[in-house]
Amino acid sequence: MASTDKPTTVSTPASEAAPPAAAKYSALDVGLRVLLFAASVSAAVVMGTAKQTEMVPVPGFPPTIRVPFTAKFNHSPAFIYFIAALSLTGLYSIITTLASISVSRKTKTILLALALLDVVFVGIVASATGAAGGVAYIGLRGNNHVRWNKICNVYDKFCRHIGSAVALSLFAAVLLVFLSMISTFTLYKKIR
Amino acid sequence: MASTDKPTTVSTPASEAAPPAAAKYSALDVGLRVLLFAASVSAAVVMGTAKQTEMVPVPGFPPTIRVPFTAKFNHSPAFIYFIAALSLTGLYSIITTLASISVSRKTKTILLALALLDVVFVGIVASATGAAGGVAYIGLRGNNHVRWNKICNVYDKFCRHIGSAVALSLFAAVLLVFLSMISTFTLYKKIR
Repeated sequence: MASTDKPTTVSTPASEAAPPAAAKYSALDVGLRVLLFAASVSAAVVMGTAKQTEMVPVPGFPPTIRVPFTAKFNHSPAFIYFIAALSLTGLYSIITTLASISVSRKTKTILLALALLDVVFVGIVASATGAAGGVAYIGLRGNNHVRWNKICNVYDKFCRHIGSAVALSLFAAVLLVFLSMISTFTLYKKIR
Repeated sequence: MASTDKPTTVSTPASEAAPPAAAKYSALDVGLRVLLFAASVSAAVVMGTAKQTEMVPVPGFPPTIRVPFTAKFNHSPAFIYFIAALSLTGLYSIITTLASISVSRKTKTILLALALLDVVFVGIVASATGAAGGVAYIGLRGNNHVRWNKICNVYDKFCRHIGSAVALSLFAAVLLVFLSMISTFTLYKKIR
């Protein structure tokens, strides 16, 4: 999708008058925003589809007695916040990609708005990654000090979903940091 | 400390030639960075001093048998990451406050560097807040689905420390978002 979008931005007649550096940053900006959309939406979907049912022993009964028990993302508030934050970021990336494409020679006001909003979304995505990662780590390793048992030895598929979602959102957070830097740097280039 | 620093920035002879808006942003920038230092260091200290020993019953023995058991911040990797991230932010805030004070008429390069670095620290502080907050929430409410018992009913003082530290770092993250916005906005003002 990035390869089909880039020519649209570069080949518009208006951009010929713009300096080549500005067009290069604009194409990079659109490409990274499309990538951000893919990363944030797939993180939300991978987290949302994290569900696994296993037969687990019941405490207080002999270990031969097992009941089906389901692990699902909505059992943890951190994972619910994660899906909300990443879905919002997906929506934000669509809007800003369209804004980036339609305005081929970006005005200073649009660059400022993108730079300011990107910082807010860095905060949102980083906090969601931290919260989900912190809870996922307890699931993976447990915590002996407070007797929180690990669950990833039982719910392996569930934990792979959670781990992939956290990795994708970490990638989305890094992308957002770069996007914010590109917007700020393009503003800086306009001064010189 | 904010009130003693402000006059230094405003009353330098060089700043008289600068437009009043730039001096206003510079004073706000220094003030917020001092506040950021206070918030991030106190968050790290409050988290680092989170320690409480209580007599708790031992599982498998009658409830009358109790042993002393200590809750400490370093029992959770999320809290260790929190202290590392907030200490680093404290160091960063000292360096950038000094940079902000010493360079009374900020050059475009310094403004760019501040805007770019602030975004990185938004990510660091937000992820630390998320991770510590996610683990603290399990301590406060527990999670019945995976039988993680709450611990804040026993370790009340410990949990007040954790909660205060998370609130302080949330404040530090919001401050960093504003600081990044101020740097970008000052760059923008220099274009017009």
